[in-house]
Amino acid sequence: MRIILCGFGVVGQSFAKLLESRSEDLYARYGLKPRIVGVFDRNGSAIDPSGLDINRLIDVKKKHNSVKKYADTKNSISGIEIINDLEAEVLIETTESNYKDAEPGMTHIISAMKRGMHVISVNKGPLALAFPSLMEIAAYNQVLFRFSGTVGGGTPILDFAKNSLRGERIISFSGILNGTTNYILTNMANGMSFNDALDDAKQKGYVEADESLDLDGLDAAAKLVILANWIMGMKVVMSDIKITGIRKIDSVDIKRAAEKNSAIKLIASCNKELTVAPKEISTVDPLCVSGTLNAISFTSEHSGTQTIIGRGAGGIETASSILRDLIDIRNESTKT
Amino acid sequence: MRIILCGFGVVGQSFAKLLESRSEDLYARYGLKPRIVGVFDRNGSAIDPSGLDINRLIDVKKKHNSVKKYADTKNSISGIEIINDLEAEVLIETTESNYKDAEPGMTHIISAMKRGMHVISVNKGPLALAFPSLMEIAAYNQVLFRFSGTVGGGTPILDFAKNSLRGERIISFSGILNGTTNYILTNMANGMSFNDALDDAKQKGYVEADESLDLDGLDAAAKLVILANWIMGMKVVMSDIKITGIRKIDSVDIKRAAEKNSAIKLIASCNKELTVAPKEISTVDPLCVSGTLNAISFTSEHSGTQTIIGRGAGGIETASSILRDLIDIRNESTKT
Repeated sequence: MRIILCGFGVVGQSFAKLLESRSEDLYARYGLKPRIVGVFDRNGSAIDPSGLDINRLIDVKKKHNSVKKYADTKNSISGIEIINDLEAEVLIETTESNYKDAEPGMTHIISAMKRGMHVISVNKGPLALAFPSLMEIAAYNQVLFRFSGTVGGGTPILDFAKNSLRGERIISFSGILNGTTNYILTNMANGMSFNDALDDAKQKGYVEADESLDLDGLDAAAKLVILANWIMGMKVVMSDIKITGIRKIDSVDIKRAAEKNSAIKLIASCNKELTVAPKEISTVDPLCVSGTLNAISFTSEHSGTQTIIGRGAGGIETASSILRDLIDIRNESTKT
Repeated sequence: MRIILCGFGVVGQSFAKLLESRSEDLYARYGLKPRIVGVFDRNGSAIDPSGLDINRLIDVKKKHNSVKKYADTKNSISGIEIINDLEAEVLIETTESNYKDAEPGMTHIISAMKRGMHVISVNKGPLALAFPSLMEIAAYNQVLFRFSGTVGGGTPILDFAKNSLRGERIISFSGILNGTTNYILTNMANGMSFNDALDDAKQKGYVEADESLDLDGLDAAAKLVILANWIMGMKVVMSDIKITGIRKIDSVDIKRAAEKNSAIKLIASCNKELTVAPKEISTVDPLCVSGTLNAISFTSEHSGTQTIIGRGAGGIETASSILRDLIDIRNESTKT
């Protein structure tokens, strides 16, 4: 199985290492023999139709902050040329999410689908802005489209709701889908000011380069769009979500909640309306998790309410979700 | 799909009603047209090869405390005769769990498998005492064996670990698998004595007829056996578990835990050893849930620790898990 990898940051590198370390096991258990034939980052690319050497790739990236110097050639070809010209079965999109035009991820995904490649995306941008259209393009081109890592990182939230609850009708759900704001709110509940809590989160590397994605609820909203489409069969995009971030929360709000044995959490919910907003949650509610944890509660018609909790991010965790998607694609595409 | 139902208590009746209410939807979505052709309880049986009338069955059970009077015939045939003589594709075993000899459930399950019927069990007894053998008998007779409802009631714990975490290696897990003892311990943490908390749980109908199953950790241990076999591929039975119940927990232990921001919970864990015992759990650990809730945390090699929380019992919730198993059997058995 030949793979083109878009982006070679923390997630991309973790995934490449994971493939390397699990290669024997993947072949034995799933008949899966993946090789990365092309990879590119902001500054350049590396290709080898017979499979790139992963250790060398990581070394080169570390030294030169790009995979460009993998080969001795002077000019590396562009990402979009790789997608359009290189033979591969699967494209993995790991570039940064943006919610203005979702580029360059959007172009990567659509170009790959049109060429008949299956696509795995951990980039939320394209899904947040155009989920219904992307599903149509995938169906039209008869390719599989997977995105487990977009919600919950390594925690299989989408899969749980779609598969483990099969035969059930999910009526509503709500969750803490952004670990960064949860970390900030947890620190505020422990007495820190908003600014100190934000600084602490920044120091720990939890905050996106564009802090607005976390603080103004955009990241949580993007995940809500994906859940609403995939789990509830809605056809919605980012602009359908009513979003309020956490910038206006102060210590008075936090104290008032604590007096009621509650805590303020940034809750994304789907219950008639789609909203992202700070809400008071009882501390005995399983949803009320601390630190950078994510949590989501699904309420079904017959089997009650179930909550799933885990870390929502992390390179190796997200890489493990890409691998799950790859195994899925292998199983699905060899069915016929 | 013809079904024989063993036992017609809360779960059996909830399942029958669920089939009735979902019949159109089940046919439209899964091509599933289930009919119950035989049902029996402690006092008698009812059969109709063309499908029993579910409303009538429930009325008769309510009036006479048995399904025996469904037909006008004087003598109803025995459960084991039904299993051995009546034509059906699936047997659903819902009689009471016991951990001495697991009868009559064990005989029901084995007889059905030998006749080539697929089996769904929510009775934990046979699995706790003979999981490895039952899997072999199922394989030998080429039938499917499902038991989602034995762990977590309607919360798809087994499915989550087996399917949503596919491609991952689960290294260890631990959980609160018995809602009754969790309810008692929660009340004790709120100041009640053990005896008062037990009385309260009894009044609410949470305690098994044989209270030892809850208090001495047998119910939790049975679920641990099922998890260890199914998720970890171990070949173990009840006697392989080191079990300590909650009878010796007193208010001093509870207070000591609270001083450390912890709570005492009856924890079933699989981590080198298999044990069920009271342990102190930090109140910020997602596992530390209150009331009758169940919770389980799985730790995988790459995707971190994930916790799933839900009600572990309830007629309609457990019935919904039987339905999931039935859909599964339908999908699996029509694959070839």
